[in-house]
Amino acid sequence: MSRTLTPTRMAERLATERADLDALLDEVLVAHIGLSLEDGPLVIPTGFARDGDRLLFHGSTGSRWMRALAAGTPVCVTVTALDALTVARSAFESGMQYRSACLFGTCTALTADEAARALDVFTERVLPGRTAEIRPSTSKELAATMVLALPIDVWSLKRSDDFAQDADADVAGDAWAGVVPLVSGYGEPVPSPDLRAGIDVPPSIRRLATR
Amino acid sequence: MSRTLTPTRMAERLATERADLDALLDEVLVAHIGLSLEDGPLVIPTGFARDGDRLLFHGSTGSRWMRALAAGTPVCVTVTALDALTVARSAFESGMQYRSACLFGTCTALTADEAARALDVFTERVLPGRTAEIRPSTSKELAATMVLALPIDVWSLKRSDDFAQDADADVAGDAWAGVVPLVSGYGEPVPSPDLRAGIDVPPSIRRLATR
Repeated sequence: MSRTLTPTRMAERLATERADLDALLDEVLVAHIGLSLEDGPLVIPTGFARDGDRLLFHGSTGSRWMRALAAGTPVCVTVTALDALTVARSAFESGMQYRSACLFGTCTALTADEAARALDVFTERVLPGRTAEIRPSTSKELAATMVLALPIDVWSLKRSDDFAQDADADVAGDAWAGVVPLVSGYGEPVPSPDLRAGIDVPPSIRRLATR
Repeated sequence: MSRTLTPTRMAERLATERADLDALLDEVLVAHIGLSLEDGPLVIPTGFARDGDRLLFHGSTGSRWMRALAAGTPVCVTVTALDALTVARSAFESGMQYRSACLFGTCTALTADEAARALDVFTERVLPGRTAEIRPSTSKELAATMVLALPIDVWSLKRSDDFAQDADADVAGDAWAGVVPLVSGYGEPVPSPDLRAGIDVPPSIRRLATR
């Protein structure tokens, strides 16, 4: 069952719709994972994938933060998309259009069987169709990989998607106001220097150009 | 004096050059701020600006996390740039090209006089020349704003900027490998619906098109 946190500020920006949350989680490639270690807070950027009602993370079995999360250390996972600069007629009202989600909870380490499927979810999330173009992971690779799952249970979603609200006196002035969209996409694929001759860019990579 | 943390993993990715750190901090618009609160870790995305040897953050005087930081709660500030998808011949070796910095320490709240200058640093960082196009902040606006400074003192910088290193057996196979750059920029400015007629897009906004 999903719950949402009561925000202390900017309640008007809180959107509770799960569909909006999923859209954000499926769009942004990197999450920032926060945990409290003995020597203080730590925030780690990492790739992630939504798998239904959970988030998946993977890393080396030797990673300190992965081991802490597997041991049940509480986590805050934040996923942020910047959409535009919001340019007001004053510095005070200027800011950004953004969407940002915080998810809270504790992670569970997946079993080896689950991990193999989870890594395919990861690959397909970034490059749909890629798993059919490459060999499966080996048992040695799987043994070196830890996959963690965080249930999508306690979360908040904030959004700012409007123009700035300037005071009447500022609107009557001569300063420009508006938004400037931030745009992103994929550039031309660059083959690896050791790519053998005659191997074309595969469909999973070509499809990125249309995203 | 700058110190760098000893990494527990991937020492080869640790770059200590301060110039690289500054370039990253001056490029990325949003930082993820991690702190440990009574009820667990919290990671907040926020705009920031580098001001010489410190980072500046600003927010409402009523913000819970700003107040916690002003009270000396230890913080981890993470700034991440994604540069490319690294596509290997196996899922295991695939990943991303990125640059990421973690800065650690405690923040200090600026005085009102310092805050006024700091807000100009913020504005100029995002939109060089903008402060000359708009009115100064009012004393009421400054009173509602808290500006925090974090010294650039204890930090680590990680970077992955190479092609994937596939095993010989995979290189001999038929799978494609390479990188796909992630590109970003600014779209066409959209005037605010309440913009008065005859106000052109100003130089600070026009210049974004060339960045």
